Amino acid sequence: MQYHHIPFEQMQTFCRKVFAGYGFSEDDCKAITNVLLDADLSGIESHGVQRLIRYHHEITSGMANTSAEPEIVFETPLSAVLDGHDCMGQTLGAKAMTMAIEKAKKTGIGFVSVRNSNHYGIAGFYAKMAMREGLMGVCMTNSESIMVPTFGKQAMIGTNPIAVAMPAKPNPFVFDAATTVVPRGKLEVYAKRGNGIPDGWALDENGQPSSDSDRVLKNIISKAGGGILPLGGAGDMTSGYKGYGFGLLCEIFTSIFSNGTTSNYIYKNPTGSGICQFYGAIDYGMFGDKAQIESRLSTFLQEIRDSAKADGQSRIYIHGEKELEARERVLREGIPVNDKTYAEMQMIADYTGSADLLPKYAD
Amino acid sequence: MQYHHIPFEQMQTFCRKVFAGYGFSEDDCKAITNVLLDADLSGIESHGVQRLIRYHHEITSGMANTSAEPEIVFETPLSAVLDGHDCMGQTLGAKAMTMAIEKAKKTGIGFVSVRNSNHYGIAGFYAKMAMREGLMGVCMTNSESIMVPTFGKQAMIGTNPIAVAMPAKPNPFVFDAATTVVPRGKLEVYAKRGNGIPDGWALDENGQPSSDSDRVLKNIISKAGGGILPLGGAGDMTSGYKGYGFGLLCEIFTSIFSNGTTSNYIYKNPTGSGICQFYGAIDYGMFGDKAQIESRLSTFLQEIRDSAKADGQSRIYIHGEKELEARERVLREGIPVNDKTYAEMQMIADYTGSADLLPKYAD
Repeated sequence: MQYHHIPFEQMQTFCRKVFAGYGFSEDDCKAITNVLLDADLSGIESHGVQRLIRYHHEITSGMANTSAEPEIVFETPLSAVLDGHDCMGQTLGAKAMTMAIEKAKKTGIGFVSVRNSNHYGIAGFYAKMAMREGLMGVCMTNSESIMVPTFGKQAMIGTNPIAVAMPAKPNPFVFDAATTVVPRGKLEVYAKRGNGIPDGWALDENGQPSSDSDRVLKNIISKAGGGILPLGGAGDMTSGYKGYGFGLLCEIFTSIFSNGTTSNYIYKNPTGSGICQFYGAIDYGMFGDKAQIESRLSTFLQEIRDSAKADGQSRIYIHGEKELEARERVLREGIPVNDKTYAEMQMIADYTGSADLLPKYAD
Repeated sequence: MQYHHIPFEQMQTFCRKVFAGYGFSEDDCKAITNVLLDADLSGIESHGVQRLIRYHHEITSGMANTSAEPEIVFETPLSAVLDGHDCMGQTLGAKAMTMAIEKAKKTGIGFVSVRNSNHYGIAGFYAKMAMREGLMGVCMTNSESIMVPTFGKQAMIGTNPIAVAMPAKPNPFVFDAATTVVPRGKLEVYAKRGNGIPDGWALDENGQPSSDSDRVLKNIISKAGGGILPLGGAGDMTSGYKGYGFGLLCEIFTSIFSNGTTSNYIYKNPTGSGICQFYGAIDYGMFGDKAQIESRLSTFLQEIRDSAKADGQSRIYIHGEKELEARERVLREGIPVNDKTYAEMQMIADYTGSADLLPKYAD
């Protein structure tokens, strides 16, 4: 499958017009586009514009409500529970993390759990919002069941990513990990490329290992069984129950705390998707001088970078560094888009009256 | 290697006398024995009495100070930093988690980060302390470097477990996971059994996969390189960088927040080990009615238990259930102890003047 490169600014202008075409406010169009393109800028194709088609289906089916406003249903000085009333995940996410940040600045902690949201892009985006305010940022989301629990063959838990961001120099620690071996988006990218998938990622409908991305994705969509393995892999010999446990932890902070929909019922509600999220901000000044804490973290991360490399490797990365470097490259070279995704953009441009701003291939 | 079974009460009486023989107060003897035997009762041999020999060396070398008292060096209504002054990890742990619980009951959150501690047994023990008080309990510890970061060949991070416990019925969720594929104790048990270790667990001194537990442990002790892989395995295809990231997260909450010793310097200080821990208690009443939250979690966990099983499997476990069932079995049958561990107990009994209470084999 061939890739073309589209300049960032053109893609940004296009996406904002697309979302305006669906009926979102100007602020919401900016918020949604910010998250979407942050994935492409970070080199995370799976969560970037290749997801436009999914958002298109969610918006046009009414799953995502273009005019819904989140409601505070429970609140303490340290915490809140919000009901998103099926609004877009990105607009709810920006509001919920802003609320968590404000609480953390006042009390030390801001924990906001959210129900009836929708897909919100990359979890790390929201964790970085808190990090930029000098706080530890935490963000999690549940999602449609795709993780098969250890010894099971039926997907019961979402990819359930956990993201944590912490300031450090020269680069911050920005951890953003699905608790499955890989996120669903990575399977989607492999399916679009037609290359199959590596061993140790997925199970078929009989609970047997499979390298057939189309089959696995088809089973997931039709709820025929199988799915993606938890981090740690199949069975218990390499501790797949740990990834399964981290997935449950994400579920507790998102759907259980918010009184929302657990992963196994996502997209089974008569109305919205039911997706739930958690936004956390922690003022680590509660442990002492913040500059000293950041400095100690910076020192330790540098010691890891400087440690001995495995044969054939020249570099040890800190979490978030690949994404930071991708940003420079993508801003320079443009956002890579493959033929299939570009065809989806064309359809969406026509639907939303944005064909005049549809970016042309730069190469 | 042959196993023998020793009744719990005999082992408890013996251990308390052993620690009294080292000079600990009666309360401290009880606290240390509680944690040690909770591992054996949970079926976690690696962290039970087979660790007595390690504690013996730490105490007799002066690494662990029998009379040290922890000092509060920083405190807010939600948080504290303690300096353990090289006391035993178990006695510090009981005090630090009690402090976290008291803060959480007052404010909603209790986060206590601790430096200059020592090995403290299983992280889950302390998370369960908060759970029994109707709180979410969180506990983490750093430890001597043993995890090789992705693309490295030098251990830079400890096994760095993360434990979380949450009330639910009929069984609570008790997650306790080293962020390496396996904990060091599991390698020690395999080494004692002389069976080698499974693929995907460890790297040798050249950064190559190894199934030789003796060689891997020897390299770890002599700092010759290699170590245990992060959860997710070698390289990046099955996302070993996620286990590495969770290990860093543990490091931030323990050594970075407490201004303590990072894993790569543990046991390199002139005096104590430098081990750091984190104790967290979260009153989830900050998200609404606690009974309803527990009930929703119980329902979801039951749906997972009831979901379809993989071929050849008859049961899906919730985290902590294997340990709960081991408890019934161990209380009935006794604590399994192998020849090597029993020989260590004999030596320790002689050293501490506890030979009169050394348990005899029940079988």
